[in-house]
Amino acid sequence: MADDSGEEAEAAACRDDQEEENMAAWLLGIKTLKIQPYHLPPLGPQDVRVRIKALGICGSDVHHFKNMRCANFIVKKPMVVGHECAGIIEEVGSEVKSFEVGDRVALEPGISCGRCCLCKSGSYNLCPEMKFFGSPPTNGSLAHKVVHPANLCFKLPDNVSLEEGAMCEPLSVGVHACRRANVGPETNVMIMGSGPIGLVTLLAARAFGAPRIVIVDVDVRRLSIAKNLGADEIVEVSTDIQDVGAEVAKIQNAMGSGIDVSFDCVGFDKTMSIALNATRSGGKVCLIGLAKSEMTLALSPAAAREVDVVGIFRYRNTWPLCIEFLSSGKIDVKPLITHRFSFTQKGLEDAFETSARGGNAIKVMFNL
Amino acid sequence: MADDSGEEAEAAACRDDQEEENMAAWLLGIKTLKIQPYHLPPLGPQDVRVRIKALGICGSDVHHFKNMRCANFIVKKPMVVGHECAGIIEEVGSEVKSFEVGDRVALEPGISCGRCCLCKSGSYNLCPEMKFFGSPPTNGSLAHKVVHPANLCFKLPDNVSLEEGAMCEPLSVGVHACRRANVGPETNVMIMGSGPIGLVTLLAARAFGAPRIVIVDVDVRRLSIAKNLGADEIVEVSTDIQDVGAEVAKIQNAMGSGIDVSFDCVGFDKTMSIALNATRSGGKVCLIGLAKSEMTLALSPAAAREVDVVGIFRYRNTWPLCIEFLSSGKIDVKPLITHRFSFTQKGLEDAFETSARGGNAIKVMFNL
Amino acid sequence: MADDSGEEAEAAACRDDQEEENMAAWLLGIKTLKIQPYHLPPLGPQDVRVRIKALGICGSDVHHFKNMRCANFIVKKPMVVGHECAGIIEEVGSEVKSFEVGDRVALEPGISCGRCCLCKSGSYNLCPEMKFFGSPPTNGSLAHKVVHPANLCFKLPDNVSLEEGAMCEPLSVGVHACRRANVGPETNVMIMGSGPIGLVTLLAARAFGAPRIVIVDVDVRRLSIAKNLGADEIVEVSTDIQDVGAEVAKIQNAMGSGIDVSFDCVGFDKTMSIALNATRSGGKVCLIGLAKSEMTLALSPAAAREVDVVGIFRYRNTWPLCIEFLSSGKIDVKPLITHRFSFTQKGLEDAFETSARGGNAIKVMFNL
Amino acid sequence: MADDSGEEAEAAACRDDQEEENMAAWLLGIKTLKIQPYHLPPLGPQDVRVRIKALGICGSDVHHFKNMRCANFIVKKPMVVGHECAGIIEEVGSEVKSFEVGDRVALEPGISCGRCCLCKSGSYNLCPEMKFFGSPPTNGSLAHKVVHPANLCFKLPDNVSLEEGAMCEPLSVGVHACRRANVGPETNVMIMGSGPIGLVTLLAARAFGAPRIVIVDVDVRRLSIAKNLGADEIVEVSTDIQDVGAEVAKIQNAMGSGIDVSFDCVGFDKTMSIALNATRSGGKVCLIGLAKSEMTLALSPAAAREVDVVGIFRYRNTWPLCIEFLSSGKIDVKPLITHRFSFTQKGLEDAFETSARGGNAIKVMFNL
Repeated sequence: MADDSGEEAEAAACRDDQEEENMAAWLLGIKTLKIQPYHLPPLGPQDVRVRIKALGICGSDVHHFKNMRCANFIVKKPMVVGHECAGIIEEVGSEVKSFEVGDRVALEPGISCGRCCLCKSGSYNLCPEMKFFGSPPTNGSLAHKVVHPANLCFKLPDNVSLEEGAMCEPLSVGVHACRRANVGPETNVMIMGSGPIGLVTLLAARAFGAPRIVIVDVDVRRLSIAKNLGADEIVEVSTDIQDVGAEVAKIQNAMGSGIDVSFDCVGFDKTMSIALNATRSGGKVCLIGLAKSEMTLALSPAAAREVDVVGIFRYRNTWPLCIEFLSSGKIDVKPLITHRFSFTQKGLEDAFETSARGGNAIKVMFNL
Repeated sequence: MADDSGEEAEAAACRDDQEEENMAAWLLGIKTLKIQPYHLPPLGPQDVRVRIKALGICGSDVHHFKNMRCANFIVKKPMVVGHECAGIIEEVGSEVKSFEVGDRVALEPGISCGRCCLCKSGSYNLCPEMKFFGSPPTNGSLAHKVVHPANLCFKLPDNVSLEEGAMCEPLSVGVHACRRANVGPETNVMIMGSGPIGLVTLLAARAFGAPRIVIVDVDVRRLSIAKNLGADEIVEVSTDIQDVGAEVAKIQNAMGSGIDVSFDCVGFDKTMSIALNATRSGGKVCLIGLAKSEMTLALSPAAAREVDVVGIFRYRNTWPLCIEFLSSGKIDVKPLITHRFSFTQKGLEDAFETSARGGNAIKVMFNL
Repeated sequence: MADDSGEEAEAAACRDDQEEENMAAWLLGIKTLKIQPYHLPPLGPQDVRVRIKALGICGSDVHHFKNMRCANFIVKKPMVVGHECAGIIEEVGSEVKSFEVGDRVALEPGISCGRCCLCKSGSYNLCPEMKFFGSPPTNGSLAHKVVHPANLCFKLPDNVSLEEGAMCEPLSVGVHACRRANVGPETNVMIMGSGPIGLVTLLAARAFGAPRIVIVDVDVRRLSIAKNLGADEIVEVSTDIQDVGAEVAKIQNAMGSGIDVSFDCVGFDKTMSIALNATRSGGKVCLIGLAKSEMTLALSPAAAREVDVVGIFRYRNTWPLCIEFLSSGKIDVKPLITHRFSFTQKGLEDAFETSARGGNAIKVMFNL
Repeated sequence: MADDSGEEAEAAACRDDQEEENMAAWLLGIKTLKIQPYHLPPLGPQDVRVRIKALGICGSDVHHFKNMRCANFIVKKPMVVGHECAGIIEEVGSEVKSFEVGDRVALEPGISCGRCCLCKSGSYNLCPEMKFFGSPPTNGSLAHKVVHPANLCFKLPDNVSLEEGAMCEPLSVGVHACRRANVGPETNVMIMGSGPIGLVTLLAARAFGAPRIVIVDVDVRRLSIAKNLGADEIVEVSTDIQDVGAEVAKIQNAMGSGIDVSFDCVGFDKTMSIALNATRSGGKVCLIGLAKSEMTLALSPAAAREVDVVGIFRYRNTWPLCIEFLSSGKIDVKPLITHRFSFTQKGLEDAFETSARGGNAIKVMFNL
């Protein structure tokens, strides 16, 4: 793990060498991003230094950009943003055997402590000491170079591009959700929301073998993208749903058989109510989207049908599977990349404005 | 299975014989219960006829008594009430090998279809064609005699009384909840509510090995019962909770370590909010109580800590374990039986009034 | 369920009507099969009568044919053989709502009791009172007509043929094995044996998403069939393996990464030894084939790597998934059907001789 | 983690200070143990230095002592022995917050890499880079002092002695086995072998709630110890079993109901055969003992009843639960400690001779 408590003199020398070249995107205030120098910590024995080549903007990055916070995470001092990334290894630590300089890798952005109960039992995504790229106060990876533990870097096969490598991060959310909900070839799936998370969940559910997937949204344009990406049926609902039961009937009718697992990738009262009511007895509702913290909904009737609510926080151990999905062609994430920008001051501003505006942008990508 | 479509003449004869003696408690209207004759169906080859000796009143019976409905189940025509029962076998069907006349048995009250996907995969409690004693329109078991499938009768060992046998039914709810939440010797448990369901959940959680159990209620008298039944800590909360966070801190402090599983045996917004917030990341909240259908609560923050919500509907395959718990002394349900009545018109009315009034009644039992 | 204890007079009449037409294949002695009349039991209220149209010969049928026994099941009196079948519904019982005359259905051949612990908890394949088509002393389904519980019949969509419907039975073995071994898109699979069971396991593992499947056999012709059916790699081993370690190395090399789950579809000492040694720490070996009862093998080293041995007995709740796999095209079983015979005395004899001879036969099918 | 590649000068100084006092038990050759100086590595920021106060001798230590090897682990150069230990913290690393000097702790002996797939998914006991006290080539902990990662030290409550703390290690094997076999209040347990591992498995199974435990051995004296420790029934079998079926019947009769889980703590052909045959359909046989690598046994019939074989390698995340069991009184390990020795050259030799001789020794403990 990167450790800046080490030998001062050497480190300083090292920093000098890099200073001219390593630049990063610093969030300085609301809607204020500047490309400025970023001093990397020295390379630990189990670390690698990676030249970042592709980085996608996530909804949480946009929240930080617009509000200097995302949920309970508050940006209190200048911070490098970004965390969906891939690049090329430039230097390997003294004990790293799995990589060579020049290897193309996707980066898992969170460094867990490895020592707490949750880490030791495999649920490291819930580690209370997690240090996660671009989640305050940890600096992110929208930079020319970063230092990262080798075990959180995953080699890309030749047929997976660096941009696709960067997409492993959002795809991991869908993969983790499908694993937690135990999606397989017997699981009919309903997805609320066809934004970026809804779409990666769609791709993941298909790759896990879901035989039938219905996706629901208020926006017909987004729904048609979902249809093109492989949804079996799309259902348009009104932004102002009056009758949850009627929408449920419409969705169940589109499915044509029981809904085993629902993913709410939106997180409003109404989307969650629809999910709870539409799912069969003994099924699961997976709550991924977090639009509203406080919801008013009828939880008891679903509980009385043993429809469980399963929560999602990021992911764990997902990169190898994502890369397998991309390499085998089971998942194609390229259609999700709608915009590309270069890593210049103007490119930085335009990219975040594009992402913040929403519109027809799904994934906005930097090429560094 | 009991089947009343059969040979009319014989059945009529059979009914004549029983007519004088088989009386049952019929619910005729709001707060109107009458002891009247109950014609039993003929005994099928896999059935037994049981002389009921002990029957407890459940909250759902009281709902039917007071409102002619419970949740979505509506009493539309006269119905025999009651379902928590035990008795003595009087006659066995032609193919029943597991029982003899005179065997003392506890009865599992629900007859599932055995043919649907849910039944065949073991989740028979969710069977859509369930016929359940005293759940409209199926007649209950507060009667001198009932006919029931032999495979839903469970022999009581000598050291388990018929009253204790009747208590297998409410205890099963706690057992099923502990199974679904995977309670074991590593599971610190918090229980919201020290009414009958909270108390059986307490007993079950202890029997499943929970090392530390904290129980929470607004009523100090009930809490002291919980303490006597083995709760490690009791926490009194106000009926008008303003600050969920403060209550959570009080409960977590009483636990002294992480809460792995919470059981909400009440089902109000505030009890569920406390449960969701008090439970550790990666833990479970089990929703058993159904006081309110529509709740306003912050579901997303808990979901983002992967605190899952697990629903409970009745139970499945719980009688053998309940009997083992009672017989081995791991669970003692006798302190829960606070009132006893005989099966007379007056006893019937007094028993239901006592149960409906609440007060210091936990379990009201008929001795027939 | 079919029940022959009923109204004698009516049943006799019913039998008279059918006597001319309902013929079945009776096993009378070693290698002695005769087409003779088969009196069906009366139709129960939950039963259907099915006109059998396709039936495949299973290895166990051949064992009965050659030895009048299979494992511990001994044919002590004349018995109708066969159990892999599909047909058309001719009559429905009085309480059957899910089918109409003319529906094309695949039949699950085993009738479990529905009342024991194993049935009630969903493991009905282990029911000690199972009555299974063509497993002595229960008559099979190589007949013009059979009576069967409606809930063990599964409607075939238009794009699934009756022959494919009959193939749901062997395919179910592979599906059940994949479920028990928890095969999914992260599971690299090794299969020992490319006979009929090895091949259906290959098809099932692929349909469950296994990214990489290596299949091992002594017979190159069979291996080339496996390759055509979608195996990623095939490995030929000698019939007289001297060095298990060398074979393991060859197989692991063909896989190119860890083997998560191995299926031994042969069941010899050496195949099981290879499977145990080739599978990664924490993986599973699924033992399906039963060539030898007594084995000499080093079980402890695998146990010390927590490689678990998972057993397989038939299947449970597999027909809907098999039909989904066939209908969606995820699995194509047609290449497995290598021989077809008509239901005449000569066809009967030729079919069993063909199946018993092995050679290039995979699945031998009757068209009735 | 301890790391001896660091700053040479400082470390040398540090070693000088300790040299006089830190002595350890070095295995120099077959049956040749000497107390000699042991230079500790420097204390890393996440490490603690522990003064060992109690250490038990394990069967693997005795194997090393007698043969310079245990299974595939060969002692090729002098090695400090021992791994079942507890002690008092003398110094804490710069980043350790969970301990203070003077804390009494039990030590988990294996340091896994924390970076491989198995570690990251929680199965760290299977880590291929495990460094385990006293397993060659890693030095053990029969020494005055050791340096160890803080997260592998577990604080002992006041009512748990240091000797009991050392017993967490063997107890962990039983706890891990019970977890893997999913033992709970519904699990009737049979244990083959009443040696130290059989006895800790007995204690663990009881603590996990097993309602009925039958233990089987050839030695009546050991069986009477098992009886005293809480076995419900003991069954003596002959050392020269001729008729597995008869022994199975005897054991099943002693149980009086189905055996859900069997633990083979011996690992001979006959013990494993008995376990496989005695266990109910759908149950589990947990193979812990490793007396023989190559076994001759009938695996297929058990597999055909879906009796799975579950392997055990050490343990993972067991110390907190062991300490809870000891502190709550659910488990009392004190009767297992039959012999005590001091840490002198003579004590060392006598202790290992006593342990190697077997006889009435269960656990031989050093008090340092």
